Amino acid sequence: MKLYGYWRSSAAYRVRIALFHKEIEFESIPVHLVKDGGEQHLSAYAELNPSELVPTLVDGDLKLNQSLAIIEYLDSQYPQASLYPVDAAERAKVQALALDIACEIHPLNNLRVQQYLASEFDLENKDKLTWSHHWMGKGFAAVESQLAKTAGLYCFGDTLTVADLCLVPQVYNANRFKLDMSAFPHINRVVENCLQLPAFVKALPENQADAQ
Amino acid sequence: MKLYGYWRSSAAYRVRIALFHKEIEFESIPVHLVKDGGEQHLSAYAELNPSELVPTLVDGDLKLNQSLAIIEYLDSQYPQASLYPVDAAERAKVQALALDIACEIHPLNNLRVQQYLASEFDLENKDKLTWSHHWMGKGFAAVESQLAKTAGLYCFGDTLTVADLCLVPQVYNANRFKLDMSAFPHINRVVENCLQLPAFVKALPENQADAQ
Repeated sequence: MKLYGYWRSSAAYRVRIALFHKEIEFESIPVHLVKDGGEQHLSAYAELNPSELVPTLVDGDLKLNQSLAIIEYLDSQYPQASLYPVDAAERAKVQALALDIACEIHPLNNLRVQQYLASEFDLENKDKLTWSHHWMGKGFAAVESQLAKTAGLYCFGDTLTVADLCLVPQVYNANRFKLDMSAFPHINRVVENCLQLPAFVKALPENQADAQ
Repeated sequence: MKLYGYWRSSAAYRVRIALFHKEIEFESIPVHLVKDGGEQHLSAYAELNPSELVPTLVDGDLKLNQSLAIIEYLDSQYPQASLYPVDAAERAKVQALALDIACEIHPLNNLRVQQYLASEFDLENKDKLTWSHHWMGKGFAAVESQLAKTAGLYCFGDTLTVADLCLVPQVYNANRFKLDMSAFPHINRVVENCLQLPAFVKALPENQADAQ
C-alpha cells in the first residue's frame, strides 16, 4: 500500500493517523506541493489523481483520492480499532462532524486557495491571514458547540473516531497560522488527548521524512 | 421526518433527490438564506445546526447536518434503491467523487463565501464570477476525467449513486452562474440522464414551495 502525501497537508495527515492507528504497513511517497510549481500537477501524478491534490492511496489496482473516502475504505478492509460507531445515527453524527471540518474549514484555507487569492486578487499576506482566520474561527465555533454536547476524551465520548482525525490536523494548521484558540476549550482538550496517542505522534507533519 | 433547506442551496438539493428517490415522506421547512440577514443565523435554527448552514434533517431525536452524512444515514435506514455500491473499493470510488464535488467545488462557491469576498475585500460581481468560474472549472475538469473512465448512464455505470446526487445540483449552480460547460461532455450527458428521473425533477429548485 502506498500513500502519496505531503508532510504539511492536513488531508494527508488525517490518512496517516488512520494508517498508524490501525497499524497498517504503508510506503509514504512525498509529493512536494510547492517546489517547481507543485509536483501534484505533473502528469504522472495527475493520472493517479485528476484533482491534482494530495493524498492518494494506491492499494493494488485501486487508486483512491479524498481523505474521508480513503479512511472509510481502510476501516472496511482493516476493521480493527474502528473509527466509526456501529449505530447508524451515531455514525452519521460522527461523519457530520468530520465533514464540518473537511467541507467547511479546510477547503477554504488550503494552499491553492491562498495562492489564487494572491495571484488573482493581489491579496497581501495580512489579507490572506484575515481570510484564513475568518473561516477557521467560524468553523471551530460550530465544532466547539458540538463538542460541548458530545466530547469525552475525544470528540465523541472516549472512543477515537474519524472526527478526531480531522480535528487534530485542522488545529495544527490553525496554530501554524497563529489563530487564537482560547475560545475553544473543548477542542483544545480533545486535541491534547489525541496527541498523547502514538499514532498521532507518528503522523505529525514534522515527523515525516519530507518535512523541511 | 423534517428537512430544513432552501430551494437554491445545492447541498439541500442533494438530500431532496435522495428522499424522493427512496420515496421517503418528509416535511420540507424553508430557511431563507438571504432575507433579514439569513434565517439560518436565528438562534432557533443555530441550535439545530451550529454551522448555521442548510440542510438539517430531523428524524425523531436525531438532528443531523451535512448533506453527505444525511444521505448515508438515509441509505442505512431506507436501504431500498441504495445509492452506494456494496463492494468496498467501488463504494470508496463513489464516495471520493461525491467528495470531489462536496469538498473541492461547492464550499468555495456557496453564498457565504460570495458575501465575504464582497464585504471584506470589496470584490465586485465580475470578480466574484471569475472566482466561481475558476473553482468550478477546475473541479469539473477533474470530475470529467473520472467520468471518462467510469460513466454509463450515470457517474458509475448504469446505477444511480450519491455521486450523481452531488453532480446535478453543482451543474445547476454552474448554469445559474453561466459557466461554459462545453468542455465537459460526460458530465452533461450524465446530468441529462439524471434529469429524466422523477426524483430529480421533483427535487429541482424551481419546484420547491419556497422558490422565488
